[in-house]
Amino acid sequence: MTSHLDAKGVYVIAPTPFHTDGRIDDSSIDRMTDFFLKAGVTGMTVLGQLGEAPKMAHDESVGIVKRVIARTGGKLPIVVGVSAPGFAAMKSLTHDVMDLGATGVMIAPPNTLRTDDSIVQYYKQASEAIGSDVPFVIQDYPLTFSVQMTPAVIRRIHTECPACWFLKHEDWPGLDKISQLRAWEKDGSMRRLPILVGNNALFLDFEMERGADGANTGYCFPDMLVDVVRMSKAGQRDAAHDLFDAHLPLVRYEQQPGPGLAVRKYVMMRRGIIASDTLRKPGATLSATAKAEVDYLLSRIAKVDPRAKV
Amino acid sequence: MTSHLDAKGVYVIAPTPFHTDGRIDDSSIDRMTDFFLKAGVTGMTVLGQLGEAPKMAHDESVGIVKRVIARTGGKLPIVVGVSAPGFAAMKSLTHDVMDLGATGVMIAPPNTLRTDDSIVQYYKQASEAIGSDVPFVIQDYPLTFSVQMTPAVIRRIHTECPACWFLKHEDWPGLDKISQLRAWEKDGSMRRLPILVGNNALFLDFEMERGADGANTGYCFPDMLVDVVRMSKAGQRDAAHDLFDAHLPLVRYEQQPGPGLAVRKYVMMRRGIIASDTLRKPGATLSATAKAEVDYLLSRIAKVDPRAKV
Amino acid sequence: MTSHLDAKGVYVIAPTPFHTDGRIDDSSIDRMTDFFLKAGVTGMTVLGQLGEAPKMAHDESVGIVKRVIARTGGKLPIVVGVSAPGFAAMKSLTHDVMDLGATGVMIAPPNTLRTDDSIVQYYKQASEAIGSDVPFVIQDYPLTFSVQMTPAVIRRIHTECPACWFLKHEDWPGLDKISQLRAWEKDGSMRRLPILVGNNALFLDFEMERGADGANTGYCFPDMLVDVVRMSKAGQRDAAHDLFDAHLPLVRYEQQPGPGLAVRKYVMMRRGIIASDTLRKPGATLSATAKAEVDYLLSRIAKVDPRAKV
Amino acid sequence: MTSHLDAKGVYVIAPTPFHTDGRIDDSSIDRMTDFFLKAGVTGMTVLGQLGEAPKMAHDESVGIVKRVIARTGGKLPIVVGVSAPGFAAMKSLTHDVMDLGATGVMIAPPNTLRTDDSIVQYYKQASEAIGSDVPFVIQDYPLTFSVQMTPAVIRRIHTECPACWFLKHEDWPGLDKISQLRAWEKDGSMRRLPILVGNNALFLDFEMERGADGANTGYCFPDMLVDVVRMSKAGQRDAAHDLFDAHLPLVRYEQQPGPGLAVRKYVMMRRGIIASDTLRKPGATLSATAKAEVDYLLSRIAKVDPRAKV
Repeated sequence: MTSHLDAKGVYVIAPTPFHTDGRIDDSSIDRMTDFFLKAGVTGMTVLGQLGEAPKMAHDESVGIVKRVIARTGGKLPIVVGVSAPGFAAMKSLTHDVMDLGATGVMIAPPNTLRTDDSIVQYYKQASEAIGSDVPFVIQDYPLTFSVQMTPAVIRRIHTECPACWFLKHEDWPGLDKISQLRAWEKDGSMRRLPILVGNNALFLDFEMERGADGANTGYCFPDMLVDVVRMSKAGQRDAAHDLFDAHLPLVRYEQQPGPGLAVRKYVMMRRGIIASDTLRKPGATLSATAKAEVDYLLSRIAKVDPRAKV
Repeated sequence: MTSHLDAKGVYVIAPTPFHTDGRIDDSSIDRMTDFFLKAGVTGMTVLGQLGEAPKMAHDESVGIVKRVIARTGGKLPIVVGVSAPGFAAMKSLTHDVMDLGATGVMIAPPNTLRTDDSIVQYYKQASEAIGSDVPFVIQDYPLTFSVQMTPAVIRRIHTECPACWFLKHEDWPGLDKISQLRAWEKDGSMRRLPILVGNNALFLDFEMERGADGANTGYCFPDMLVDVVRMSKAGQRDAAHDLFDAHLPLVRYEQQPGPGLAVRKYVMMRRGIIASDTLRKPGATLSATAKAEVDYLLSRIAKVDPRAKV
Repeated sequence: MTSHLDAKGVYVIAPTPFHTDGRIDDSSIDRMTDFFLKAGVTGMTVLGQLGEAPKMAHDESVGIVKRVIARTGGKLPIVVGVSAPGFAAMKSLTHDVMDLGATGVMIAPPNTLRTDDSIVQYYKQASEAIGSDVPFVIQDYPLTFSVQMTPAVIRRIHTECPACWFLKHEDWPGLDKISQLRAWEKDGSMRRLPILVGNNALFLDFEMERGADGANTGYCFPDMLVDVVRMSKAGQRDAAHDLFDAHLPLVRYEQQPGPGLAVRKYVMMRRGIIASDTLRKPGATLSATAKAEVDYLLSRIAKVDPRAKV
Repeated sequence: MTSHLDAKGVYVIAPTPFHTDGRIDDSSIDRMTDFFLKAGVTGMTVLGQLGEAPKMAHDESVGIVKRVIARTGGKLPIVVGVSAPGFAAMKSLTHDVMDLGATGVMIAPPNTLRTDDSIVQYYKQASEAIGSDVPFVIQDYPLTFSVQMTPAVIRRIHTECPACWFLKHEDWPGLDKISQLRAWEKDGSMRRLPILVGNNALFLDFEMERGADGANTGYCFPDMLVDVVRMSKAGQRDAAHDLFDAHLPLVRYEQQPGPGLAVRKYVMMRRGIIASDTLRKPGATLSATAKAEVDYLLSRIAKVDPRAKV
């Protein structure tokens, strides 16, 4: 079903741009989408956690997807976050966005799941609810969702759900998990599962070397992610690490839960990608001190990567 | 704002009746509503957790509220559960149901809240988001939501949010919490807060004696709840306990998370209140053994309370 | 290894009696132990959570075990709670109490365990650490420990750890778990596992009917537990439920986390089993209102069970 | 009481060195202690979480403290981790180590605490239990302990407990928390509280600039921490960041929960500080791939910091 689908490179997690009064900023969506295309991303995920999905009304969500798809004109696979407390809302949003031309959806587990069976069961029921022909992405992010999936659980989901498309891997620690999944593929005990890494790319350097296919995250320099993934794939190890390490102080700063998204939007605003760094409530705002810290980090990155001159 | 509103007696938590194929069963909604009215409930809460709210699409939710309001014909205050992962969906549903004539809404805290300030902040932001003229109910259910509200936190919410209507108290243990809140009202350090108790009425007997105004829960014999509340208010202590204790084995059985709702619907079906005990997925089903256990409990209750002869 | 060991009847969870100043009350230990023997318990568990184990210094723990074993004179199997944040302390206490003549130990999982594998792994490592010849009890109490063990996980622990002695079953809901384990024994996919139930006996009535071998809990009337287990085993269903139901209002009251242990000690003091209802800090104390509620419940039970006349 | 005590610079979190068979390696303790002294640390914390404290028997814990104090000869304040599930064990270890000459103790909150009051209450009871003349350190590490302390809660603990010595700050995000506490000191609403930062120093660069007094963590290059703290205090901002950033890829790698301690010990072994990188069970081991990744990171750091040539 999803056998014709692959996933590699950088599927950027798109923030949702707002006007300063909280309305969705359509022209910033367009400009941001153009920027992503030019930066060389290979896919786009909208309405993820860091796309402030839970703050959007259903119609707004649909509107965002529509606009992004129109702007990319089919040049990029579009993944839409549809996580919801119940399958009815998940199904409803999925159908609407698939009708608009989305490629697939991303599903995070509810944070009450504990046992292995309950996690597998959840994904099976979700896939059945949204339609077993809809490609879906497993979001494995225990830091945020408090749900711990072993490699064996991921293998079970992938094996028992034909519509499973790829893994958004953001476990921490997570390097050995990638190695384990790849080892199972190698010895034939698991079919191929594309792995794109998240967690703000904090371990992108080594995750690529462990066998990841790319990134599925939203750092404020997605163009850096594109470069690191390309260099790593090309075997340019030192160069990949050099670029990554230059950004790491800011990657770390942006990875902070809460203020992180405010940092991301602030930098994207400074880069001219979006018009405002506004978050919808409830959302963090950066103090003047925090902004000055980010500016300082940008000035340091700029010594190595001219894109940080903003 | 909500100063004209009171809350006492039994605000029954209504389940959502489905046909065996999962569609909403409108005629069972009508029959159930009629039953509640006849049983003497003083209010109705729809689309709570045990109303399977998260399994409903937005339009279905609105439809249920519309039907219930039409059936009660304004004879009962209607509370609608509007808990959602974000304020946009919460606001959207609130506006729709208030337009239809709902009296107020119930809001449960997201299960990630920890500090006192974050809980108070959440309710203030929620009230602002849905409209500070919309009466809302605090749902204090740590067993399900993992959020622990001290009496002082509840007082702060009540003090800082003029639209705070009443407390759905279902902390466990919770007796001293009621006593503390009532003591604060008595010494003038808190304005009057109506308290209706939930947690499947497991402690209704003593909660009434500690100062609760009634129940806000959904046991399969809401008519028993009405009687116990009335007798307790009338000072008929032994009689209230006698009736309550006769039901306690089943109250306890129905309070089990997961199968509990299936028990409730099974008994309501056997009582002829709803047509089918179907739950929407994901939902528990009762084994033959479990049904036989419930039947046995009913036969034992029937020795004291003839309503259990079904 | 544990193949010669069985477990059935009532393994009472013993509280630790203190003087009013917090010192351990040796003569109350003796009197309580004599009471248990006379009541017909078939085993004793000391230093469980409700034995206030974490509040005891190592030497105090050893002293309690020594005294209890001396008093029972080998007439009862003695289980000692040895749960600890690390295996070193667990091993140290285990060796000391096994040397004194304890029969086995009880191990609760640390509340950080999530995946199936991590739970099984924990018990394997614990068993190895304390000595694979030391019979151990699995404590399955998700309400307190936040660790969820599926029946399959319990089967794995039992299968992979020869020293696994019995299951202290206190999952909630938990009836179907017992049925599942018994079904696996019946179809040969699992070797016999004795099951004693806890959770303050809240479901003892039906748990016995589902296949439990008895109780492993500490209600303030362990003599009632002995009777219910005996009657249930003898097929006297109605009589078992009649007695159980008479106590259920107090069972429920005592099951409250926090004040529950204070209730238990208060009643045991009123029954003359221990001299004082003192808990060590940090511990709940009963308000005058709470004590009056318990007294009222006792007076109601006394109408059916004369042992409650205190 | 603790008014004469200050805390600044680097209080290094010491790992516990083992022989390959798991026995405590005394000569490595000596060599490591000498190394710390030479590196310029201003204090030492032993038996923290990353000192594998829960894996130590009581006598082993006491032995380690004794050896470290003998080796430092009173030249350094010694903090001992005494966190325990109950106050009896905490008191017992505290008394033993204070008798040996420890300066104070560190206390982490149990991971079940939720409300503000319960956290403050816990520290008050702990301080009373161990003796209100024993200086104690608040460990604020929500990532590991799941306990969230607002700045106001920390202020309350510090205000209500005269023996409160300093804050081991490792909240994440945590920069604004430092700013808030310092602002309160400035406006007179809080007495001076020394703040040393942990969380593997992941934000040491900016935490110093926000007002921290130093570090209280255990990165495998404590000599780097000493330098960064010194340079930051001296206003050498760029130099401090240059050195910090050179190490950040490894700081991040070592901060992974689980394998992190294995990384730390592996590097300390390679640096000749301890003889073996053995952890006691249960503990992570590094795969060959992981070791190669660490080696690669060391080779990259060595281009800037010659101490990484190992």
